[in-house]
Amino acid sequence: MRYEWRVLTDAGREWIVDATGATPDALRDLARVQGIVALLISELRLSPVGEPHWHVFPGEAGVTGLVLLAESHVAVHTFPELGLATFNLYCCRPRAPWPWEDRLSQLLGATRVTVREFERGARKEDAE
Amino acid sequence: MRYEWRVLTDAGREWIVDATGATPDALRDLARVQGIVALLISELRLSPVGEPHWHVFPGEAGVTGLVLLAESHVAVHTFPELGLATFNLYCCRPRAPWPWEDRLSQLLGATRVTVREFERGARKEDAE
Repeated sequence: MRYEWRVLTDAGREWIVDATGATPDALRDLARVQGIVALLISELRLSPVGEPHWHVFPGEAGVTGLVLLAESHVAVHTFPELGLATFNLYCCRPRAPWPWEDRLSQLLGATRVTVREFERGARKEDAE
Repeated sequence: MRYEWRVLTDAGREWIVDATGATPDALRDLARVQGIVALLISELRLSPVGEPHWHVFPGEAGVTGLVLLAESHVAVHTFPELGLATFNLYCCRPRAPWPWEDRLSQLLGATRVTVREFERGARKEDAE
């Protein structure tokens, strides 16, 4: 059986961002990671609902942040042992692209930033 | 310039799940959606950190839930006007696949469930 992808409009768009080569100390710095999320929210004029949820993992581990938005959510996890920060931005209303590469190289020392972008609400349907 | 994808091991895996054709009343039923997330957490033996963050949008709109996990996070958004529920499960430690299609057809009346799965920590690198 053949399938094709159909995309439901108005279901939003997700950006999956992985920044590697980042400075481990920056990835453990809660205030710095919170500042990046605050900048993202401010520059894209997103609307947090309630308080963000932040957690600092013990020892040499990283931090996690989850922010519920009127427009869906932002999530960030850092992995200092891998030099890695991963972000999800899911936005059910149109937004311009954010300069992830510039911001994450400047603020986390990331040397590679990959951005994968796709529609939510996609579904496979039988092709005619 | 050519690129290839390199995947950092140990950075985890994400499942992006879109369920369409779901029953609008089920998508507005906070307890039902919370029950699905509780079942996912229980069956995959995931470890919530702190309290989940739930929000019910006003009027005929849907619900959002974000759960911070020791293994990363779960997010769910429902869109009754589209018959749509969207889930993200990001898990930085290995887990078996969850039977998304069976669970979401049974519990939300979804008629199509698409599961996209990919590695986090991927980065584009110059090919040799």
